[in-house]
This record gives sequence, structure tokens and C-alpha cells, in this order.
Amino acid sequence: MKHLLSTADLSKDEAVLLLDTAAQMAATQSREIKKLPTLRGRTVVNLFFEDSTRTRISFEAAAKRLSADVINFSAKGSSVSKGESLKDTALTLHAMGADAVVVRHWASGAPYQLAHGGWLDAAVLNAGDGTHMHPTQALLDAFTIRRHLVGLRGGAGQGVGADLAGLRVVIVGDVLHSRVARANVALLHTLGAEVTLVAPPTLVPVGVETWPCHVSYSLDETIDQVRPDAVMMLRVQRERMSGGAGAFFPSPREYTRYYGLDARRLARLPEHAIVMHPGPMNRGLEISAEAADSDRAVIVEQVANGVAVRMAALYLLMAGDTSAEGNTP
Amino acid sequence: MKHLLSTADLSKDEAVLLLDTAAQMAATQSREIKKLPTLRGRTVVNLFFEDSTRTRISFEAAAKRLSADVINFSAKGSSVSKGESLKDTALTLHAMGADAVVVRHWASGAPYQLAHGGWLDAAVLNAGDGTHMHPTQALLDAFTIRRHLVGLRGGAGQGVGADLAGLRVVIVGDVLHSRVARANVALLHTLGAEVTLVAPPTLVPVGVETWPCHVSYSLDETIDQVRPDAVMMLRVQRERMSGGAGAFFPSPREYTRYYGLDARRLARLPEHAIVMHPGPMNRGLEISAEAADSDRAVIVEQVANGVAVRMAALYLLMAGDTSAEGNTP
Amino acid sequence: MKHLLSTADLSKDEAVLLLDTAAQMAATQSREIKKLPTLRGRTVVNLFFEDSTRTRISFEAAAKRLSADVINFSAKGSSVSKGESLKDTALTLHAMGADAVVVRHWASGAPYQLAHGGWLDAAVLNAGDGTHMHPTQALLDAFTIRRHLVGLRGGAGQGVGADLAGLRVVIVGDVLHSRVARANVALLHTLGAEVTLVAPPTLVPVGVETWPCHVSYSLDETIDQVRPDAVMMLRVQRERMSGGAGAFFPSPREYTRYYGLDARRLARLPEHAIVMHPGPMNRGLEISAEAADSDRAVIVEQVANGVAVRMAALYLLMAGDTSAEGNTP
Repeated sequence: MKHLLSTADLSKDEAVLLLDTAAQMAATQSREIKKLPTLRGRTVVNLFFEDSTRTRISFEAAAKRLSADVINFSAKGSSVSKGESLKDTALTLHAMGADAVVVRHWASGAPYQLAHGGWLDAAVLNAGDGTHMHPTQALLDAFTIRRHLVGLRGGAGQGVGADLAGLRVVIVGDVLHSRVARANVALLHTLGAEVTLVAPPTLVPVGVETWPCHVSYSLDETIDQVRPDAVMMLRVQRERMSGGAGAFFPSPREYTRYYGLDARRLARLPEHAIVMHPGPMNRGLEISAEAADSDRAVIVEQVANGVAVRMAALYLLMAGDTSAEGNTP
Repeated sequence: MKHLLSTADLSKDEAVLLLDTAAQMAATQSREIKKLPTLRGRTVVNLFFEDSTRTRISFEAAAKRLSADVINFSAKGSSVSKGESLKDTALTLHAMGADAVVVRHWASGAPYQLAHGGWLDAAVLNAGDGTHMHPTQALLDAFTIRRHLVGLRGGAGQGVGADLAGLRVVIVGDVLHSRVARANVALLHTLGAEVTLVAPPTLVPVGVETWPCHVSYSLDETIDQVRPDAVMMLRVQRERMSGGAGAFFPSPREYTRYYGLDARRLARLPEHAIVMHPGPMNRGLEISAEAADSDRAVIVEQVANGVAVRMAALYLLMAGDTSAEGNTP
Repeated sequence: MKHLLSTADLSKDEAVLLLDTAAQMAATQSREIKKLPTLRGRTVVNLFFEDSTRTRISFEAAAKRLSADVINFSAKGSSVSKGESLKDTALTLHAMGADAVVVRHWASGAPYQLAHGGWLDAAVLNAGDGTHMHPTQALLDAFTIRRHLVGLRGGAGQGVGADLAGLRVVIVGDVLHSRVARANVALLHTLGAEVTLVAPPTLVPVGVETWPCHVSYSLDETIDQVRPDAVMMLRVQRERMSGGAGAFFPSPREYTRYYGLDARRLARLPEHAIVMHPGPMNRGLEISAEAADSDRAVIVEQVANGVAVRMAALYLLMAGDTSAEGNTP
């Protein structure tokens, strides 16, 4: 692996290697001294074309625990917004000696341009591009599912090398605008899970029939028929509800009624099923407080696993070529 | 001590321990190499819900001199402003492995919620909440007073263990809106000093008669009658003068005339008295340039002492439980 | 050297020392481990009164590669904008123990005030002030020219100690508002180069006849008559074209026609001539894509050299007095 741009590009072996490495990283984090010397002297640039404090600080924490230097480059208000092209930004980061660039961009595909434009030597990690992809989010979701569920219904067993064969995951919400949904469908399928998307008809993307998953318009029917092992609630963008796209959106009250995860629906899930959310949650909208705070919710673990997964990705992309140094974690 | 939330919670022994530790920290800072390895591998998050560059960089400098990793989380424009609850923010920081959270919040009491919500493992340091508290500001003020004045009028003598018994401190200005005033009254009283607040009648808080201090409406009378050892000028928020609270405020000209520290009042202070200000100053409003720049002003030292006090607080809250490592400064 | 405020203050020996040190720094950067321990425990504050992400991250990368701690202080939205004086900001940074302050300010002369106000102990590095100066930009330009051209037409030969004697540099664009042009004219003259400024008549500053350079209004004539070794295109501020200063500006179309570097003009340059730009470029306005991407363009190298030059400046100003430690790079 040279870059991490899309979960659709990952082979099963690569995906499992990322998850296994993340498990090693998570193990180091539970010890007293959290800092590894692996990436000392390397520079990670967080290049953010839109705000995302949570993702940025997760990558920043991951890089610092590997002893890398981190430089935050918020492209809002910078020369980028004064008309500098992505190419010139890339050449600048190259010239400054960036070893990895973590990029968040409002335009789908921007991380591909950055990685394959021939402008940059560094590893590129996609931290979310438009409505397209968010690979580290999907990896932390898969990591969380593996920790909790593998072994219950089969798969290669727990621990090293395990995939998600046989597990059933339901993803609920505004699939149309969700890079989290796209990233998860591709990765979970690669890892052997069976995915069902649940969304209002107006929020299902055109062409979804070519995706490796099922689609349903009813959350209640899906819970009863699929009997999911994991339910992943997508975040509702409130601004979409009243904005130009408002016509496609149910009202908040309708949304909660038909697609919200509340105590009643929670009680109908299989006993071992886990509840996931990429955060930040709209409590009372797509998820009720009872569901968010129940002991089936693994939402806080997802965040913790995000640091381990990002440490793994940075490690595999940046330290993979210095094996002579023996800096394995 | 697990958290540092309010000076009203500090026992005299705790307060003195903080000041003694700060003195040790200040001593290390005067040597050539300023960096201590004490908090290597620990993560300090600066969680700021309102801008305060000065306080943020003071904590950042303190944490870095103890070799901690620092992550700045400005909650303006983040998902917090998109409706995330303090609880979810806390859970996120917990999951990311924050060892200490330095929080500045516009709402009084927010740091208590953060510390006692059961969401977070980390030490919480209050860096200013609403009009309520600003404990590290009060500690740096007490530290500065101790350095200059203890021994003059008694107390336990200079150096280790000294308190402020017998010293007289006058605090002047908009007490109603001032967390600095509240924090100082509580701490200075605990340390044995005698505090007098001076404010326009409209800027004295309801219930002040229950505070452990005297109240006066006249700066001139107070100077003559109290003969203070230290005079602390509060910052005037210019925006309050013309805003909705304007009715409570004297005009700038009246304010300066009755409550400003100018050369004339400066000359009437006891010869050994020091002049303090939490910064940033409005020169010409609450303090004249002569007073701000006179050799009685210790305003720059207050800033320097702020770094030492914050190093002490981070050290005592974060390293207190790893005594086996022998990382004393 | 105690500060780096203006290229007009640099003697030839100082300028050559900076370039020689930058060459050493650049050599360390091409090795596997980029991090030098030289400034461990020292604090560099980036004090930016206007946004300039590129310059800020170049200084940040330079400081971190020398193992300094970096604190970013964006003065927009800080107490500075609430009326704090430059003096009080300086006193604050002094009290916090800043060892160097990198300052960017919209007001010409602010870095001088900061350095010579008697408020601050730290080394001050001017990172651009108003329309006045930008010394590290000029140094990186001179460094780039030296790398490519010295030896071609004479000078003291390549390598250590070489100056730019005999080289011809043409600087094209909005000289009136350009601190890059001012900084380069002074430095290139000191180093022995012959400089010609090319600008529309309305964008030539009053008093330019006292500057140590030639002035021309025609780019075509200058290319043919001067036969430049290096052509430096200045950035056009688009906001100036339509703003209050619009009357002085040619239209974008006229500007490109008379002062833009396009393929046709590129072809008429001497074969060895290099094309420079301080970035970020307006492709299609002051420089065409062909010119920007041609193999004569050294624009990306300029950025890389910027890190080396800033490492050199920080090293010479900050580590110069600790020779006993033997921390030479």
C-alpha cells in the first residue's frame, strides 16, 4: 500500500492486515507509556479543506503517538481559497518534505488527484472527500465489529487474520449523501459481511442496485427479517433538512418516527447486536438517548478504535519501507 | 487532587502545595534547558469553547515544557456548534485517550459537568468558565503576591509553605462579570489574606455580603483606609459598556475617573505595594500607561508565573499517580 | 545577528553565512533522519497578524526539524484585536519564555517595534510586514539562484562563500505593493547581482530611483536587452484589481498581455535562465501554465529551499550563543 484512498481499492488481505496492525496498536495504547518512536523525524500534514475537528484530532493523536511531527494546514482562509490549485498546494507540501498528507476535501475525488497527480511523494490518506469515501471511518467500524462479534456466527475466528464472514450489518439513514455508507459497504463486503442499507426512498443513490448490498425502505421490516448483528445509524445533516435538499428529506419528526433508533426498536434487535454511530450524534433525531447510552452502544469504542486504526494506517504507509530500522511497534 | 475546577474547593494545604510546586517549576525555567521529561507520552487537550489565545498558549507552553503532547481543540466551528452535547465531546476525548483536558467555556459550571459527568477519565483543568471561576489565574496571582510580599507583614515567612496571612489585597473593577475576582477572593481568603473589592454599585454581584471579603464603592477611600499591599485592576470589557449591559456601566470617562489607576492614585499607595492586572490591559481606561509601566507593576511577571503555575497544576494532577517512575521535576 | 528584520540590514558576510548555513541544512534534509536536536527545549512562537498558511507552515516545519517547540499564535480574533497593544503582546511572549518570535504583520515596521521596543528578549524574525519586507523570501530566492546559476557567469564560484556577482535578475509585476520585490532588490544588490524591475507605470513606487536597481515598463524590451539569468514573477493580488486600488491596475487581460510570462516570452529567455515565483501562483494571469510547469521553472525548489533557509535563520539567531554545547548541525 502506498496510499489509503478508498476502501473499494483494498484487497481482503490488505484490509485484514490493517485491522491486525490496528489491534497491535490498540494493545500498545493500553500500556502505561503510549508513545512509540516509529515515525520520529517524519512529518504528517493534516490538509483540511473543510472543518472536521474530530477526524483531525484523531489523526493528530495517532501521528503524535508514533512520534511524528504534525502540521495542521486548514485550507479555509489560506491561499487555496485565494485561487491556488490543488496541484500547487501539492507541490508546496512536497517541497516542504511532507511524508504523509491526511486530506479532507469537500470535492469527491480530490485525494485521488493529490495521490496520482505526480506532484507529491508522500503517502496520501483520505480523511473524507465529498460524498465519496471515508476509509479510516469504515476501517474503525470494521475493527469494532470484529472485536465484538467475530466468533459468534463463524468467520475465521477471533484475533489475527479474522474476517467478518457471515455477519449481518444494517446501515440506516441518508445514504445518498453519506461517504460513511459508501466506505462501509465496500469494506464490509470485502471482509465477507452481508450489508443492508435502510433509507427513505428519496435518500437512496441512483445506481445503488450495482452496490454489493441489499436495500430496504423500512427499518422495522429490516430489523425483523435481517436480524442484524450490528446496526449503524448515519448522522443526519440538519442543514440538509431545511436547505435546498429539503424536498428530498422527511421532516425531523417523520425521520425519527420511521428511521430513528429508539428504545422500542432497540428492544427488538437480537440480544448480541451492537449499535454504532460515526458521531457526532443528534440525540433525539436519528438516535434516542436510551439507544445512544445503552450497553449495546459501542460508539465511544469506535472513537478509541479510530486512533488505533489511524496509527495502523500511518504506520503501514509510512514505515513500511524502513524495515531495516526494525521499528515495528 | 484529581481536577482543578475552582479555588473554592482548594484546602489551604493543596493551595500551598500548588504554589510550592510552581516555585520549583519556575526554578527549572531559569536554567538553560527548560524541558522536563515528566509528562512524555501523555496527551493534554486544550478544549476551548471561546477564544482565549493568551490562556491557551500559556497552558500549551506549560504542557510542552513537561514534554506532553498537546492537541488544540477549538470548539468554535466544530461539531460542538453543530449540536453535539458536552457529554458526547467528553466521551470523544476520553476515547481518544486524553490524559488531561484544559477547558474554557462560556457557560459557568461546564468544567464541573465535564469532570463529574462520569464520561471522562482525564484530569480536568478549568481555564475559565462564564463569570464563575478561573483558578489558574488566581493561583498565578497568589504566587506573584507571595514572591513579592511575604515576609513584609508576617505570614509563615518566605519560601516553602508560606501563606499570605496578614496581607491586604484590593481588587478593583467589574466584579459582577469577573471570574478572576471570584477565583481570587476564594483563594486569597484560604491563604489568609484580607481582600477588599472596589466596584461601582451597579457592578457588585447580588449576595456579595456572603463572600469572605470587604466591599467598597470608592477607590480613593479604600486606598487611604486599607493601605493595600497589592492592587489588582480588573479588565473592563469594552463591549459591555455599549452593549445590553451598558445601563449598569459608567461611561468610559466616568469609569477612568472613579475607578482607574492613574499616576495620582499610584503615588498614594504604600511604597511597597504592587500593581497587578490579569491582562490584556486597556491602557487609558482601567489603568493608565504610567501605572502599567511603573516599577510597581508586576503584570509581566504574572504572565511568566502563569506558565509555572500551569506546569505545577498539570504535574500534580497528571504525574501524581506515577510516583514509581520518580519523575519529580 | 540578533534578529532578522530586513535584507537591507544584512552585510554581505551575514548574507553569505545565511546561505552557506542553509546549504548545510538542505544537506541534512536529504538524509533519512531529518530531525536535528539543535533547538530542543527552545520555544518558537509564530505570531501572525494576518493569515499566511504557507509561510507559517514553512517556519513551523523548519523549527520542528530543529526539535524546537512551536506555538502558533494567530492574532486574528485574539485579545490583540480587542485592543491589546503590540507592546503588551510582546511583554506577554517575553514572560512566556519565547526564545524566538516569527512575526507576520499587516503594518510595515511592526517587526522592528517588536525587536527594538525593549520588551522582548527573543530573536525576532520578520515573516512579512505590510508592503515593506520579507527577508526569508529573499534569502530563499537568493539561495535558489545561487544553486542554479553561480559559476555560469563568474562570482566567487560555486559552493561555500559564493555570492551572485555578475548575475542579472529581472523582477516583474506589482512592485508598488510588493515586500518580496523590496526584500529581493536589497539582498540581490548586496550579493552583487544586477536587478531590473519591470512594472506598469502606475505600480512603480515613488522614490524607486534611489533603489539600487534599474526600472523598466516593458517586459519584452527587458528580456531582449538585459538577457536575464533569472526572471522572478510577482503574485498579482486579484483583490487589488477590482478594489479601491483598481484605478492603478491594468485589467487582468492587459496585465497578462504586457506583463505575463507566457510560452512566447519564455522561449526568448537565454537558454540557462530560470523562472521563479514566490507562490501562490495565479496561473493564466501573471504566469501561464506552460511557463509555470516548464523545466526552467524552479518554483517548487524555492519552497523546499524556504525550509532550509528558515532552519538556517533560526539556527543562527537561536543557537549562536550556545557554542559550548557543540550543537552544530
